[in-house]
Amino acid sequence: MSKKIAGPEIERLVQLLSRLPGLGPRSARKAALALIKRRVELLVPLASALADAVDKIVVCPDCGNVDTLSPCSICRDERRDRSLIVVVEEVGDLWALERASVINASYHVLGGHLSPLDGIGPDRLNIARLVERASAAHVTEVLLALNATVEGQSTAHYLTDQLSSCDVAVSRLAQGVPMGGELDYLDEGTLAAAIKSRKRM
Amino acid sequence: MSKKIAGPEIERLVQLLSRLPGLGPRSARKAALALIKRRVELLVPLASALADAVDKIVVCPDCGNVDTLSPCSICRDERRDRSLIVVVEEVGDLWALERASVINASYHVLGGHLSPLDGIGPDRLNIARLVERASAAHVTEVLLALNATVEGQSTAHYLTDQLSSCDVAVSRLAQGVPMGGELDYLDEGTLAAAIKSRKRM
Repeated sequence: MSKKIAGPEIERLVQLLSRLPGLGPRSARKAALALIKRRVELLVPLASALADAVDKIVVCPDCGNVDTLSPCSICRDERRDRSLIVVVEEVGDLWALERASVINASYHVLGGHLSPLDGIGPDRLNIARLVERASAAHVTEVLLALNATVEGQSTAHYLTDQLSSCDVAVSRLAQGVPMGGELDYLDEGTLAAAIKSRKRM
Repeated sequence: MSKKIAGPEIERLVQLLSRLPGLGPRSARKAALALIKRRVELLVPLASALADAVDKIVVCPDCGNVDTLSPCSICRDERRDRSLIVVVEEVGDLWALERASVINASYHVLGGHLSPLDGIGPDRLNIARLVERASAAHVTEVLLALNATVEGQSTAHYLTDQLSSCDVAVSRLAQGVPMGGELDYLDEGTLAAAIKSRKRM
């Protein structure tokens, strides 16, 4: 807010809320007011949830996931297939795969993608630990589940190089028409990939 | 989230964040991840700002504003024109007027508008205290700065009735073409009001 309109505590709350992704100054003010108005149902529990997060949430030293356990509950889960490591850019991608319940493997969170223009080189990503994990005898496959963006794909190529010394198969996600996708609305790259990788009926 | 994808602390944080206005389940997950990723700059300060809010923010018993002081800093401000009470629906409206620095009066926050269909009658709004305040000898005008919606305007008419016994002038905001407004995009009601209240050049 350009002009101070409330006490410093409220100003600070609005200013911090406006730094959350998806909230601008206006919606941060709305969120702050909603919190103040709904003290018992929202403000008090959110304050305690954040205090809990400060105290308890840690980054897993093995895979880079966030959890209240270290190593994280996925790394501890004995029912997971430890021979397959699914590499993702961000924890949000791991959550998306877990929500979809499509794979029961271990994960590795890079913490982003290579982006030389933004000064993000290999040393800024969680790559050394990935190579170390992929070198373990029980690991047979590394699936690079990176975004199908230019940055995601160049990161995938870099990782493929780095993993060449490990005795693992390196794979990537299939590209093609998404479920419910209408051809008329798809870009040429997707159509080209879908045709190139066409399957027999 | 339909499927549990992280520890209960993270789930609870996401679930609470998704109840803020402007955040859905997806953006709440993004916000939670941003908080966890930016622990020092965002998570810790926001946790402490919310704890502060829980401890310190109160509703002003006079005007219904929210502040860390009681009565609020506007009610305490000796430089304000106490003869004029500006009535608004919500604290956000008070903030909007204060940001615009267009008036230096005291306020009265109703806490909403009359909405019989939602069960919001006069007893649910901060009206009795307004009539009491408006009856004070030093008050000469009550400006009903309510939204130009059907509910806001019917609330304004109800308040005008209620205030008829007080010795005050009751006014409302002017209606007309907003600054930068293009006639082609304005509704008929606004155009009619702008023509009816036309001013000499």
